[in-house]
Amino acid sequence: MKLSILGCYSATPRTLNNTTSQVLEINNHMFLIDCGEGTQVQLRKHKVKFNRIKHIFISHLHGDHFFGLVGLISTFRLLTRETDLHVYGPKGIKEIVTLQLKLADSWTNYNLYFHELSSSKSELVFEDDKVEVYTIPLNHRIYTNGYLFKEKEGDRKLDVYAAEEANINVAYYRKLVQGFDVENEDGALIDHKKVTTPGPKPLSYAFCSDTMYKEDIVPIIKDTDVLYHESTFLDQHENLATKTKHSTAKQAAQIAKQANVGTLILGHYSTRYDNIQVFKKEAKEIFKNVQLAKDGKTFEF
Amino acid sequence: MKLSILGCYSATPRTLNNTTSQVLEINNHMFLIDCGEGTQVQLRKHKVKFNRIKHIFISHLHGDHFFGLVGLISTFRLLTRETDLHVYGPKGIKEIVTLQLKLADSWTNYNLYFHELSSSKSELVFEDDKVEVYTIPLNHRIYTNGYLFKEKEGDRKLDVYAAEEANINVAYYRKLVQGFDVENEDGALIDHKKVTTPGPKPLSYAFCSDTMYKEDIVPIIKDTDVLYHESTFLDQHENLATKTKHSTAKQAAQIAKQANVGTLILGHYSTRYDNIQVFKKEAKEIFKNVQLAKDGKTFEF
Repeated sequence: MKLSILGCYSATPRTLNNTTSQVLEINNHMFLIDCGEGTQVQLRKHKVKFNRIKHIFISHLHGDHFFGLVGLISTFRLLTRETDLHVYGPKGIKEIVTLQLKLADSWTNYNLYFHELSSSKSELVFEDDKVEVYTIPLNHRIYTNGYLFKEKEGDRKLDVYAAEEANINVAYYRKLVQGFDVENEDGALIDHKKVTTPGPKPLSYAFCSDTMYKEDIVPIIKDTDVLYHESTFLDQHENLATKTKHSTAKQAAQIAKQANVGTLILGHYSTRYDNIQVFKKEAKEIFKNVQLAKDGKTFEF
Repeated sequence: MKLSILGCYSATPRTLNNTTSQVLEINNHMFLIDCGEGTQVQLRKHKVKFNRIKHIFISHLHGDHFFGLVGLISTFRLLTRETDLHVYGPKGIKEIVTLQLKLADSWTNYNLYFHELSSSKSELVFEDDKVEVYTIPLNHRIYTNGYLFKEKEGDRKLDVYAAEEANINVAYYRKLVQGFDVENEDGALIDHKKVTTPGPKPLSYAFCSDTMYKEDIVPIIKDTDVLYHESTFLDQHENLATKTKHSTAKQAAQIAKQANVGTLILGHYSTRYDNIQVFKKEAKEIFKNVQLAKDGKTFEF
């Protein structure tokens, strides 16, 4: 699982600060999460192949999280994309994009599907044989969702030597790694656990931005391996956080602790702070394993 | 008159190429012309004071000319702008911006006026005591206007020594520079031309992008000091220019020659060409005074 931060600052893009956008590589998927203005250029800088992006998840309709979407969709068209594109986001996102395409007289030449969200409960929005994506209802000034990306339990690992010893026909190997017991050549039932070991632990990633402190999300993101939680402010500005429905670094750490996540990544910093190291220091007082998002930084898990 | 090129490439923003946007400083006005994605960051890079921009002129609703507009308008709000903002552009531009502001629940705290255009004839869209702005109807795939910015005739320059010699009361000096004849202290009528010299020549700038070759614009831009004319293609790709309703460098030069402009600036290059010097070479065969737009370049006239 690999997370590339294209932008992690709040409010407005600046010369050195990009607004929110991330690429999550998980089980061969390349999910784009949020799409602030300039995301298409950030994708080019990071040499992300546009055609690998088939799913875009938008948290909410504030500009610093989606003003780059229509440009990306248009650029895909200009590059004669043929691959389907799925966009997940709040109700209204389809109208915004289609109005602009209509007025530009430039429909996409690929299939563009909108999955508009309006539920206040966590729901499964994407699933294939390897990955599930759920919404994480957040509490911000407008309707907002985080997203939880979960790998499914993968195949077990076959101990070929043990399988041969147990006299199992190779035709049954596939069944074994899928967790089924099988009969061997002598008609004896072989416990799959005797000839296989558990596969790699499925990983999970929760993206939570923008939101004020919201304990309701703890059960949804419980035991998640990696949690990105916004920390627009420091504790000294908790009043501003409450007023604007954002979180402090301390609050993000409290959520991480209660949810027992593996790693907490902080981001969505207000540009009022010159030194983002202070966010890490503040969060570490509550929760040990804290990392700082930075534009251009890649995390591998 | 000063022209700053924020971006001059066609189609899509890239790591080193910005899409169309320019700042024209003329007679203390700071006009923003077109606003491709990322324009607000380009403005920051060029240290343009946001509050000095009061008028934005959008040529047409293709993304590479206006996808940065809604972000700029939102950023102005976040920076607690109070100055009025006027946006000129094709019908539909108001709906695009207001839909996004509505869904973000973020109305501007300053007055935002839209001047929507739909005429196919050149019209005066802005005028004050120093400057006039006219549309230049162009021929592109969708409704498109260029803009002609014209300084008005300014005050004449007073020859103070001559005025004193002519025994004119200082109270009449203002009348003289405005071109009126006045009576001197002895009751004699003094020709204003005897004590004043012509003021600086009023300058004009014509912005023409995007358009196919269109001779109809020649009378509108006749004798303009500076003409920016798109040249998406070279003559070798004239068929592509015709097909996509763009111009070649050669065609831009033909327009410049017929209109007898002072300087031709080329831009809106397709990124298919590695070396933009070839555009200049091609245009110079038809018209002598050719300059190349480049992202970040400033022209002073």
